[in-house]
Amino acid sequence: MKNPVIFDTDPGIDDAFAIHHALYHPEINLIGMTTVFGNVPVEIAAKNAKILAEMAGQDIPVFQGASGPMVAPHKGFPTFIHGADGFGDINLPDPKGVIEKIYAPQFIIDSVRKQPGEVTIIAVGPLTNLAMAFRMDPGIAPLVKQVIIMGGAAKEYGNISAVAEANIFNDPHAADIVFRADWPMVMAGLDVTHQVILGRKEAEDLALKAPRIGGFLLDAADLYFNFYNGAFGIDGCYFHDPCATAYYVNPDLFCSIDAAVRVSCEGPAIGQTLIKPAGHPGPSTEWDGCRNHKILMKIKGAEVKEEVLGTIAKYAD
Amino acid sequence: MKNPVIFDTDPGIDDAFAIHHALYHPEINLIGMTTVFGNVPVEIAAKNAKILAEMAGQDIPVFQGASGPMVAPHKGFPTFIHGADGFGDINLPDPKGVIEKIYAPQFIIDSVRKQPGEVTIIAVGPLTNLAMAFRMDPGIAPLVKQVIIMGGAAKEYGNISAVAEANIFNDPHAADIVFRADWPMVMAGLDVTHQVILGRKEAEDLALKAPRIGGFLLDAADLYFNFYNGAFGIDGCYFHDPCATAYYVNPDLFCSIDAAVRVSCEGPAIGQTLIKPAGHPGPSTEWDGCRNHKILMKIKGAEVKEEVLGTIAKYAD
Repeated sequence: MKNPVIFDTDPGIDDAFAIHHALYHPEINLIGMTTVFGNVPVEIAAKNAKILAEMAGQDIPVFQGASGPMVAPHKGFPTFIHGADGFGDINLPDPKGVIEKIYAPQFIIDSVRKQPGEVTIIAVGPLTNLAMAFRMDPGIAPLVKQVIIMGGAAKEYGNISAVAEANIFNDPHAADIVFRADWPMVMAGLDVTHQVILGRKEAEDLALKAPRIGGFLLDAADLYFNFYNGAFGIDGCYFHDPCATAYYVNPDLFCSIDAAVRVSCEGPAIGQTLIKPAGHPGPSTEWDGCRNHKILMKIKGAEVKEEVLGTIAKYAD
Repeated sequence: MKNPVIFDTDPGIDDAFAIHHALYHPEINLIGMTTVFGNVPVEIAAKNAKILAEMAGQDIPVFQGASGPMVAPHKGFPTFIHGADGFGDINLPDPKGVIEKIYAPQFIIDSVRKQPGEVTIIAVGPLTNLAMAFRMDPGIAPLVKQVIIMGGAAKEYGNISAVAEANIFNDPHAADIVFRADWPMVMAGLDVTHQVILGRKEAEDLALKAPRIGGFLLDAADLYFNFYNGAFGIDGCYFHDPCATAYYVNPDLFCSIDAAVRVSCEGPAIGQTLIKPAGHPGPSTEWDGCRNHKILMKIKGAEVKEEVLGTIAKYAD
């Protein structure tokens, strides 16, 4: 049996690409999706995760988690990017199945305790569910195989402020807890995700190869593409969340540095990931006790897109 | 008459190189040195500035300023880097002249008001004197020709923490005030100063060419070289402060980006310079009202050393 994977998410357009990648990839044993506020309210996130699983004909349990940040005030939802429904306002029908009754962080705890050392958590939204799970049961940290996140920025500028990436910004206190916990993390931040642009043409090609799933993704992405076009002059979008699933199945597509990470929780730097590379000589006592994580710094963008789109084209429909 | 320059400083070994560059360079019209705590207590900084001026046979007035940070607690003095005397503990005699009675920030205000639009301030220590001058008389900001600082880090890691450069860290609140004020600034931070290493051999060569001044600098730098050797394995030192005077006389030795800057004043990011490049699309409201400054990102290191050492070799002794 392949190692179990929990996908923590707030779908979201780029989430949808990553989730279909995870649902269809034969090497990803998705045991559940946990949902969090972020691109959309958590209730919509849960509904959307369930819709995506059913779209792929899979009975993946979906758990609802945090509806807002642990400490910081909530900043609202980016409906102009992902739509009010998270899928570019394309008015999908509700899922047939129901959302599980168990609180998402509890599902994370139960899964890790059941298979110690086996579970990978891929988290592509605010890190609130992971931080809550760690606060509820700190003993799980060393029992997690790895935590792969899409979030943060080491040397790249931010996307929600000049220095902050949106997922970390949306719950900086949670992110600081998660980075300080003793589980091995992989940070797929803007340093790599800003190096991969999914062109509208590539989404159109996918829709030709896999009309049902690819067609949905193309429809859902239309608003997202328009946002990127207006904001950045890009005819397409950054391919944020799929970088995390691509790393899971093929880490060789990335280069990383080892570093401890803290998160700014106040002032103009709020939400910024603060990188202390291994071996840095400074007296950086604020990072004391923080283990090193893998910070992805380079990416083979074309191969990552081929991995994700190729998997969907091959196995979907 | 050449444009007036005020040099704000906490000598300090690399300060001494920069000050002798300023004292001897025919294009630098040094009208006064203002001193600040930092590498040494402010009383020693003032004494050292006067010693350096007298060493060059020049009657430059020296003003004593801030003895500690505006708000943050003072973190102590790096005697293991610059020595207790700021000159590597070589026991120089006291200066013959006296320190002026005027408070350093008041001298800055008076000079700027006297020659509006003319005065350049080169500041290579904590920015407390500049922030105090601005708080005492905010109207001076648009009357200053330019402020060139050695401090901060845009993309480079820090030298006092993983993310903070020591001058900014030593008074983050002052630095945040200075970056937000409406004067055009040039930031010579670790992005450029970490690209220039002064080798011990180069200091020895200077001592041969200019035995009195170069010899003093070589003697004073011995402890500094030893610190760098132990901490970084460098047989020499980073050439921090002279980058600021080199920029003043030859800005073509540098490449820059335009950016607004804030400073983290709390948490693990304390003392970090937060760079918002011009044109950055993020909703970075924390930078609202901040003008753009020049952030130096690239440097012609060999030419900068030749500029500074060559000037001293040519005009000193």
